[in-house]
Amino acid sequence: MTLRERAETFLERPLVTRFIMGVILFNAVLLGLETSKPVMAAAGDVILTLDRICLAIFVAELVLKLFALGGRFFRSGWNLFDLAVVGVALMPATGGLSVLRALRVLRVLRVISMAPSLRRVVEGFLRALPGMGSVLLLTLILFYVSAVMATKLFGASFPDRFGDLGATALTLFQVMTLEGWADAVVRPVMEVYPYAWIFFIGFILVTTFAVINLLVGLVVNAMQEAAEADKPDEAAARHAELMARIAALEERLAGR
Amino acid sequence: MTLRERAETFLERPLVTRFIMGVILFNAVLLGLETSKPVMAAAGDVILTLDRICLAIFVAELVLKLFALGGRFFRSGWNLFDLAVVGVALMPATGGLSVLRALRVLRVLRVISMAPSLRRVVEGFLRALPGMGSVLLLTLILFYVSAVMATKLFGASFPDRFGDLGATALTLFQVMTLEGWADAVVRPVMEVYPYAWIFFIGFILVTTFAVINLLVGLVVNAMQEAAEADKPDEAAARHAELMARIAALEERLAGR
Amino acid sequence: MTLRERAETFLERPLVTRFIMGVILFNAVLLGLETSKPVMAAAGDVILTLDRICLAIFVAELVLKLFALGGRFFRSGWNLFDLAVVGVALMPATGGLSVLRALRVLRVLRVISMAPSLRRVVEGFLRALPGMGSVLLLTLILFYVSAVMATKLFGASFPDRFGDLGATALTLFQVMTLEGWADAVVRPVMEVYPYAWIFFIGFILVTTFAVINLLVGLVVNAMQEAAEADKPDEAAARHAELMARIAALEERLAGR
Amino acid sequence: MTLRERAETFLERPLVTRFIMGVILFNAVLLGLETSKPVMAAAGDVILTLDRICLAIFVAELVLKLFALGGRFFRSGWNLFDLAVVGVALMPATGGLSVLRALRVLRVLRVISMAPSLRRVVEGFLRALPGMGSVLLLTLILFYVSAVMATKLFGASFPDRFGDLGATALTLFQVMTLEGWADAVVRPVMEVYPYAWIFFIGFILVTTFAVINLLVGLVVNAMQEAAEADKPDEAAARHAELMARIAALEERLAGR
Repeated sequence: MTLRERAETFLERPLVTRFIMGVILFNAVLLGLETSKPVMAAAGDVILTLDRICLAIFVAELVLKLFALGGRFFRSGWNLFDLAVVGVALMPATGGLSVLRALRVLRVLRVISMAPSLRRVVEGFLRALPGMGSVLLLTLILFYVSAVMATKLFGASFPDRFGDLGATALTLFQVMTLEGWADAVVRPVMEVYPYAWIFFIGFILVTTFAVINLLVGLVVNAMQEAAEADKPDEAAARHAELMARIAALEERLAGR
Repeated sequence: MTLRERAETFLERPLVTRFIMGVILFNAVLLGLETSKPVMAAAGDVILTLDRICLAIFVAELVLKLFALGGRFFRSGWNLFDLAVVGVALMPATGGLSVLRALRVLRVLRVISMAPSLRRVVEGFLRALPGMGSVLLLTLILFYVSAVMATKLFGASFPDRFGDLGATALTLFQVMTLEGWADAVVRPVMEVYPYAWIFFIGFILVTTFAVINLLVGLVVNAMQEAAEADKPDEAAARHAELMARIAALEERLAGR
Repeated sequence: MTLRERAETFLERPLVTRFIMGVILFNAVLLGLETSKPVMAAAGDVILTLDRICLAIFVAELVLKLFALGGRFFRSGWNLFDLAVVGVALMPATGGLSVLRALRVLRVLRVISMAPSLRRVVEGFLRALPGMGSVLLLTLILFYVSAVMATKLFGASFPDRFGDLGATALTLFQVMTLEGWADAVVRPVMEVYPYAWIFFIGFILVTTFAVINLLVGLVVNAMQEAAEADKPDEAAARHAELMARIAALEERLAGR
Repeated sequence: MTLRERAETFLERPLVTRFIMGVILFNAVLLGLETSKPVMAAAGDVILTLDRICLAIFVAELVLKLFALGGRFFRSGWNLFDLAVVGVALMPATGGLSVLRALRVLRVLRVISMAPSLRRVVEGFLRALPGMGSVLLLTLILFYVSAVMATKLFGASFPDRFGDLGATALTLFQVMTLEGWADAVVRPVMEVYPYAWIFFIGFILVTTFAVINLLVGLVVNAMQEAAEADKPDEAAARHAELMARIAALEERLAGR
């Protein structure tokens, strides 16, 4: 057994995976505590040191995995995911890059790549996406066209909500989620353009219908997947049994 | 028949269960009347006395059931539920413990443990939970990570909404339900951090997708349960009939 | 053919039903025009006269139907529905009874009892209700218990929203629909009772879960109904064909 | 090969369809850029010229298609759609007709008629509509009756929200989407008409139930379509196999 194989076996030992999982959860608690000012004032140094130790363990694990798997490491999306969320934490977060400091929390998401049941849920989500592809693309096209139209129609009078494509996209997303669409968005616009309701009611009906169709598609797909996993076996087994019995009959008739 | 057996038989008599059900419903009305000031001013003493009599009946029933079932009493979750909601009402509610006084109303929920059809619905709800376990856990992890990130990113400028993990969790739950997410939460934040929409739109899309998958999972599970309860019988019966006929054919051929 | 039978045949003639349908739709337009002040100022007398003529036609049709069907008239829920919505229009709407005047519009709903396809949809809705019975009842019980608790807990400090059972029920229904639950209801309450979120988040989760289960139940029921209406025929036909062929085989073997 | 046939073959060449698709997407970007003031100030002439070139290409393609297909052109709804969205762009948008200028953006929707997968999604949407016909019609009738009633009941005191049928329809649509229904609509009305909640809660329950039934119907229809496309083949194939074997048995028995 080469050193590489031994490293791989070591990483797959239940004790090791459980230890890493424990470190992730412990780190999650630490990152939570870091958001509390009184806790940081009382024990900030300890927490930051423990956080660095957790990070060191993750780095060590990843380096070992890289050594053990070699090129195979990069074939699994989950390994790349681990590499990315740990890599973010190693970047220097100086100056205005407070966003990078916040992104460190993504490390906690490693709990997903470690737990097979959570991995399966995420993989199921991702598998459902291509099936929704066409409907999503259509919704996006309708959204883009609506955004350009709304910017041209209402941009001059309502620069805050419809001033440029970005502002309009946010406003239309708000209308699509039905949050304050009537009193905060449509009624003020209607005071200047009385027929604006045609655009907005149309937009709401079309996007809601698209979202509903997305949902219906998801239900039907999930159902078919579940049905395919189950029933055929039973029906096929029964059919096979029947065919075998008829074959036996034929043989008996022929044999005589 | 021992005294215990007689107590159990007595408790299971339709007249007794119907009487207890009646007391629960009567008690529900009393507890409703207790919230009305004019009613309490006019007939407060009568209502409180009747309430105490109802409670006494519940206690007597529970004690009798405990005596009848002995250790078996604690094996049913519903008995423990009854014990808890009646027990709450017996606690002294002095001083600031007005919460305990409000919890007394939970007694009315005994109507669920008494009516088999309602019990079945609750049991169905609880049975559906483990199937949702992984998706729920994943949503919780994403929620926790998002809460820590939002607290780090926006906490300093918006202490009311993102000051600590608790405040952020409430705000993110509000955003998840799409209540006032745009005008009350995201737009004010975007005035300080113009790119905050990336975080919030991402959060809304991911959590909505998770909730939709939860719903789809529930539909598929309920469907499969219903399908398993129904169809196999019919298909299996037909298969058995076919096999019997073929067996008869074989016998006839062999017998000759 | 008696006079009664001739009346029934007359009422069922396509020309007659189409004429009545036309009167209903014409009346619907009239009732819509009545809401417009300029139209009423210009042609109020004409519209009110035409409205009375429509009503007279409805009354004549109902009286004829009553004569034709006799006691059978009252066996159909739709006839009772027609009687009620026409009867409302005949009541005197003097004094403060402007509600009765508004209820006259319900006459337009006769269009549902006249069109078979719409009748079927409503009958489908009503048929779906009993299946939802237990879940609806459970939701109602939880709602009542929550309303009593919220009135006891928050009534003293927030008389507007939680002052009595009625006010609390409206507020909780608002929270259940997620309209302004956070900024308008929960946050103000949390300023007085910091732990109020436990009650409200719990209430939202439980009622949302109940509503989702209702929806899932509806989907599963509709699916099973559709499946029962379809597939068995085909599978049963195939099974019958198979059995017939095997029976023929047996006969042939026996006949020799 | 006539000139017409050659034109048709030319239009169907992958290179040509891909080129047209590219022009549509390029045009979409141009139309987006047109909404940005700084971009238009810097390169407005170039963008408008390119836009006109794109339009010219679309017109050339349509004219060629008209020539190639002749009368057949008008048999496809998608061709009429292309004709309409390109035609809108050719109309003069002078004076107050800024709406026509905004409608030019609809040209981007040609991407749907060019991509078969998007076409199929839209065709699926349109195919789902007739199945929803009765429920939609019923919802519309209920909506109209509710609008007339609300205008009569609340119009006098709340001219802004219930002043005429149009204003009431918008308000009721807002209530139906649950946006601000309680705090912005129902509570103010209840201050004048304390029993208004009966109307609004009833309206919400009925329309929500109708929408849910619409959704359930869509799921069931999609499911049945998917089931019909799949399973019968397999079951029918198995049945045919069985029948063939039994026929062979019969033949053998008869042949002897």
